Amino acid sequence: MKIKLRENERMDDLEFKGLKIIQNANGFCFGIDSVLLSDFARKIKKGSRVIDLGTGTGILPILLSGKTENTIFRGVDIQEEVTEMATRSVELNNLNDRIEILNMDILNLKKRYAKASFDVVITNPPYKKKESGIINDNENKIISRHETTASLEDFIDIAAFLLRNSGEFYMVNRPERLVDIFTIMRNKKIEPKKIRFVYPNKNKKANLVLIKGVKNGKAFLEFENNLYIYDEEGNYTEDILKIYNKK
Amino acid sequence: MKIKLRENERMDDLEFKGLKIIQNANGFCFGIDSVLLSDFARKIKKGSRVIDLGTGTGILPILLSGKTENTIFRGVDIQEEVTEMATRSVELNNLNDRIEILNMDILNLKKRYAKASFDVVITNPPYKKKESGIINDNENKIISRHETTASLEDFIDIAAFLLRNSGEFYMVNRPERLVDIFTIMRNKKIEPKKIRFVYPNKNKKANLVLIKGVKNGKAFLEFENNLYIYDEEGNYTEDILKIYNKK
Repeated sequence: MKIKLRENERMDDLEFKGLKIIQNANGFCFGIDSVLLSDFARKIKKGSRVIDLGTGTGILPILLSGKTENTIFRGVDIQEEVTEMATRSVELNNLNDRIEILNMDILNLKKRYAKASFDVVITNPPYKKKESGIINDNENKIISRHETTASLEDFIDIAAFLLRNSGEFYMVNRPERLVDIFTIMRNKKIEPKKIRFVYPNKNKKANLVLIKGVKNGKAFLEFENNLYIYDEEGNYTEDILKIYNKK
Repeated sequence: MKIKLRENERMDDLEFKGLKIIQNANGFCFGIDSVLLSDFARKIKKGSRVIDLGTGTGILPILLSGKTENTIFRGVDIQEEVTEMATRSVELNNLNDRIEILNMDILNLKKRYAKASFDVVITNPPYKKKESGIINDNENKIISRHETTASLEDFIDIAAFLLRNSGEFYMVNRPERLVDIFTIMRNKKIEPKKIRFVYPNKNKKANLVLIKGVKNGKAFLEFENNLYIYDEEGNYTEDILKIYNKK
């Protein structure tokens, strides 16, 4: 299939099952957080119906289509230009039968889908509160990084609505927001069940956290082993090489 | 001062500023969790008025009397025999002017003290839910380990009542209860501000968590470096030796 690249766009090889992705060099490119989240969620059951809230370039559905079996995905993003690009990435990978990208505000999803209509919700939401941090000058980057359009509570509230009973929720976020995350999740009846901290290396503090919740799950939090990105020599650790399929 | 030891009691040297403690060999002896909590809380400000909920042997007030300046302590425990022993430990260390041990149910503290009458609350509460785990045959051990008399929510509720605005709360607990802890703390307006995970060693999972909260604090959670008890050779790490004042 011939896919047209626009100005400033580039096509990147994901080096995994031949998958590719289109990104805008001036926009928000996917980062290691999405790759780690796709690994954390890799055990999504065969045939699951999955929705990605704030899909951006479509990186999560595209990677997870390669890691899971017979799953189907809906990827939702408020940014028109980005969803149009994600749609071309889906076509590029011949995944039209498994992935559909929707350009809409996640706040409107309750009108679009019935309650409990998904088995899994995944999300790499904006990490920063609206008022916090330096506001980036590119509008796409602002929407991707800051809670300009929907808050963490909105993301979790929508997830709770869309998830069936015992359905799974996977999120990546910043450790400093853990109290917000746990409090909102429990309040919305998505019980945090598994957590994994990600560290740049063994001497630094965790800067990402991966969380799995279960709709109406029983309270008990399990810790996965810490994940370190780099070893003492500044090379990727074995764990990271495995996730990137280099081992 | 001559302190009488009862049957089954022993006197242990805390190897810190000449402090000693009486323990019952058949009862619940203090563990590394209390030592780590006393280290985590060592920056309690000069002159603070501190209360320890569920003081047991009195280990926390006794250790913290040596780590802080001009502080005064109230240690509360429901177990009569244990508080009587803790009182003798206080006398043994000539700390009667700084530490008072009270034999009462923490649930009655709201009648005993006015709201906001303490600067700091510390607690090493029972970790296990009432119904969970194997019930130990010794009644003192049951009360010390299980939420038989007061729940985690009770401990945090009483702490919130006793703490002044911006007062500090220090607790040690189990990582698997982190969702309960964060949710209840925020609900009671003691914002979790600092957290430290404790690991048996670098290859195992965290089995303790130290938490600092601030009454009516602003939401932002800071992570302290992970604390490992043993190194690869099975010896205490430098961090632990420092805490035990062996370095």
